[in-house]
Amino acid sequence: MSETETLNAYKAQLEAYLKNLPMAGAPDRLREAMRYSLLNGGKRLRGCLLLAACELGGGDAEAALPFAAALEMIHAYSLIHDDLPAMDNDTLRRGKPTNHVVFGEALAILAGDALLTHAVEIMAASNHPRAFPALGEIIRAAGVGGMLAGQTLDVTNEGAEPDIHLVEEIHRGKTAALLTAPLTAGLILAGAEGARVEAGRKYGFHLGMAFQIMDDLLDLEGDPALMGKTLGKDQAEGKLTWPACVGIEQAKRDAEKHIGQAVEALALFGEKAAFLQALALSTLHRVQ
Amino acid sequence: MSETETLNAYKAQLEAYLKNLPMAGAPDRLREAMRYSLLNGGKRLRGCLLLAACELGGGDAEAALPFAAALEMIHAYSLIHDDLPAMDNDTLRRGKPTNHVVFGEALAILAGDALLTHAVEIMAASNHPRAFPALGEIIRAAGVGGMLAGQTLDVTNEGAEPDIHLVEEIHRGKTAALLTAPLTAGLILAGAEGARVEAGRKYGFHLGMAFQIMDDLLDLEGDPALMGKTLGKDQAEGKLTWPACVGIEQAKRDAEKHIGQAVEALALFGEKAAFLQALALSTLHRVQ
Repeated sequence: MSETETLNAYKAQLEAYLKNLPMAGAPDRLREAMRYSLLNGGKRLRGCLLLAACELGGGDAEAALPFAAALEMIHAYSLIHDDLPAMDNDTLRRGKPTNHVVFGEALAILAGDALLTHAVEIMAASNHPRAFPALGEIIRAAGVGGMLAGQTLDVTNEGAEPDIHLVEEIHRGKTAALLTAPLTAGLILAGAEGARVEAGRKYGFHLGMAFQIMDDLLDLEGDPALMGKTLGKDQAEGKLTWPACVGIEQAKRDAEKHIGQAVEALALFGEKAAFLQALALSTLHRVQ
Repeated sequence: MSETETLNAYKAQLEAYLKNLPMAGAPDRLREAMRYSLLNGGKRLRGCLLLAACELGGGDAEAALPFAAALEMIHAYSLIHDDLPAMDNDTLRRGKPTNHVVFGEALAILAGDALLTHAVEIMAASNHPRAFPALGEIIRAAGVGGMLAGQTLDVTNEGAEPDIHLVEEIHRGKTAALLTAPLTAGLILAGAEGARVEAGRKYGFHLGMAFQIMDDLLDLEGDPALMGKTLGKDQAEGKLTWPACVGIEQAKRDAEKHIGQAVEALALFGEKAAFLQALALSTLHRVQ
């Protein structure tokens, strides 16, 4: 299979799993609000990475589906809360009205809480023999030293002077943490240990950094009027971005360097790592 | 030890544990916001119940501390989010300004998210041999079929006609779920199974229902001007309450009946259940 076919196969498997989640006991309106944001046509990068990492380690991707789904639910919750009026106050996401625009703020807050809680619930309901350590990896990534650290630094530093160390901390938390957990958790589910899990951690971190730097660059290039400038939508909103600190050309070089390090990190897996290495390289050519 | 001494001993142990939580990696401002609501002088009923249930089952209360703390963190997160302007819009809690009043809405949302996530993180970091099933009990209680179901029904039915079945569903979710999980999780941590865990579940449910009915009654009696009326602060805000459905006298009888059932549920534990039974009975005389 080509890289695209492999990715699409993972995505289809995960999409079907998410669509059929019973969410037992959820009141209709809560289930609706959760599904609205969860099933909105995302790329499923985090979930697919976990399935690929699990197979890289010689594990069974199907048994890892609850963990891949949990990552997508945590990602969806973070976007719902990020979009709230008190946070980024975004009314559109992927061309559709954001959760609070459709369901109201109260239900959007609850739907975010519920997606996070349900992510843990489906991992806790798994009888996978390595469910507990995998759950730990994922929740730590979403936690106060991971994604929530990045979000806090983002919120509390709006309008601050560009500072590369601060931006690195934000990107590490907001983006890289939730791209690293699929690698470590997927490998742990496969029974991998030590250097193999650490190789996955390194890959995830560098992929995440490159991914967010490219996102910052796309933010500039997305608006032709801003093309070649160092001020895009995110920056216009007072967000700290990588190119604002180092310039566009250096940002491109930094993204390439991170991808090189991600590819290199998986060398110890040999040819089996080809898919994840190709996926990392494609990040440099991605479009929004 | 008297019932009060036992309760205070559990509380002191738990309070010390919560105060010393490292929350590793949390940015200062996030840690501050989390601690503001977590260390605000609550009664620690949920955490103490878990420690007592663990000892009832013959387990080690100290090893159960992360799980007792997790319940308190989940309770604190639910209050922060409940108090938000988009939800109940409360500016005071236990006589102090609510989280969003002090830290702003964005950080209050994140602090709530972070307390929920960190609750799971500390349970996942426990090396207790029964950590995984205990975590499952607790997260299910907080989930879409538990606390979040109650909160959703509460939010989506504001101003609805009093309906005893609906109020029961709301109380079961909003209050009883998080008073049941300490019993089942505490007993599971102690290695209890089957009928003993189910006895704890029954106790927790009936205690929770009585607790919330008493809360509804205290809401009426808290304001002398409303004394004897069936309309208190909660009702004035369009919340559904038990006395509004059945009247004050019947509500008192229902609370007593639930407490009787809670006490009875623990009969199979014999004299060891005396503390939890006395605690349930004291609910009928509690003041706000």
